[in-house]
Amino acid sequence: MADDKYELIYHAGIPGRGEFVRLYFEATGTPYVDTALTEGQSAVKPYLEGSFPGADKNPLPFAPPCLKHGDVVISQTPNILLYLATRISAPVDLDSGGAEGGEPAKKKAKASAASVDDPATFHANELALTILDLNDEAHDTHHPVSVGSYYEDQKDEAKRRAADFRSSRLPKFFKHFEDNLQRSKSDYLLESGPTYADLCLFQVVDGLKFAFPKRMAKLEPEYPKLMKLYTSVKEAPRIKAYLESERRQTYSMGVFRYYEELDGDE
Amino acid sequence: MADDKYELIYHAGIPGRGEFVRLYFEATGTPYVDTALTEGQSAVKPYLEGSFPGADKNPLPFAPPCLKHGDVVISQTPNILLYLATRISAPVDLDSGGAEGGEPAKKKAKASAASVDDPATFHANELALTILDLNDEAHDTHHPVSVGSYYEDQKDEAKRRAADFRSSRLPKFFKHFEDNLQRSKSDYLLESGPTYADLCLFQVVDGLKFAFPKRMAKLEPEYPKLMKLYTSVKEAPRIKAYLESERRQTYSMGVFRYYEELDGDE
Repeated sequence: MADDKYELIYHAGIPGRGEFVRLYFEATGTPYVDTALTEGQSAVKPYLEGSFPGADKNPLPFAPPCLKHGDVVISQTPNILLYLATRISAPVDLDSGGAEGGEPAKKKAKASAASVDDPATFHANELALTILDLNDEAHDTHHPVSVGSYYEDQKDEAKRRAADFRSSRLPKFFKHFEDNLQRSKSDYLLESGPTYADLCLFQVVDGLKFAFPKRMAKLEPEYPKLMKLYTSVKEAPRIKAYLESERRQTYSMGVFRYYEELDGDE
Repeated sequence: MADDKYELIYHAGIPGRGEFVRLYFEATGTPYVDTALTEGQSAVKPYLEGSFPGADKNPLPFAPPCLKHGDVVISQTPNILLYLATRISAPVDLDSGGAEGGEPAKKKAKASAASVDDPATFHANELALTILDLNDEAHDTHHPVSVGSYYEDQKDEAKRRAADFRSSRLPKFFKHFEDNLQRSKSDYLLESGPTYADLCLFQVVDGLKFAFPKRMAKLEPEYPKLMKLYTSVKEAPRIKAYLESERRQTYSMGVFRYYEELDGDE
């Protein structure tokens, strides 16, 4: 099973929740197949209809992203990240690699996959869960009433929710991350070095900069550790090469959307 | 460390998100301390201020519930459940025990704590995550715009969100659980028998019956496996004894609230 390839099943065309998984593969140099990007959007359907390979041995996913690894199919973003962390022994590598792809990985302390005996495994998981909560709240600014209806049909409610998000929720979450970064003895959320939680935090900040540029320009100077982390991840050779590649989907109609009327510099 | 007691830190006075953890302790017969119930609500504060014992070795929690286990402090409900599952080897026991408390546990197949080598560990986690998403959506019916403002200040938006929740979201989630129960070869979400995911599902259905009695009365007959699971958990001797005890907090102003105007039988 360790030799089975990792297949990410997620909508093509938006970074979305699949992005947290992509970034982890990229930062650890783990080969993966992004099925909808190679086979088309229809590759997602069998996973929602129960007709995917292995459907007799795995629960039906509620929504993408899904991960297929040999006979195992699992869903829910933080669950996929944790599953991978318990199997991928390569560290989140923010030093080596690069756009040319030819540079060998720098010498690293011997890494091992996450173990449930190590509290850091659950600390990374709890931080990722909180970061994904912020991701969901960012989504709900443009869909505060009904995920199944158009933004245009809930614009008034969206304006109210976005104002609350900008003035109360963003500072509350950012203070939480900044506090934890201040307490950590490394430049990352956990003292032991970069984990997938840092990659998740990068992605959410990146999405927020796209969706709320005015508000973020005002907030960023107040959270120096958070923004330093954001920049380190963005400039890490492997991540930079990924972000410049065609594998990185552009923001459009997913979780992070730019609606001028939902932004504000307070 | 295995001998260290489990301490749940959560607000007193509502079932809330702490309830998912309490039910797991109760159903496995695991001793635990419910700190805010024994020491008062002020016991929660140090965990949000960074002044809790072990604050130098653990990240700051974003919000309760927290779990303290020896030197380890972790937060986020699904993370706590998974941590416990990897340590508690007793099965979720829906057969033995009882109100009298004196009945010895029935003979069980030898159980062991959840392992990351077993796909069922990640299947339980993914199901719990989806159930907790439903829990959050139930919360947002009365707080669609701002979690920091009163319900009374967002009643119009709440009516719209609750209508969408009743007509679209509830059936979508319930169909998902019913489909998975239909596919399972046991009466539980996973073929291998009851897990904490089943307890979570019980709790959300119970809360929904409190918050949306009319809508639930109409929906229940359409999801016979789901309602059978709900009843089995509710009538399980250990759970029944717990629900009748003073340890079970009553619904009031938490996630599940009864506002007549948010219910409807469509």
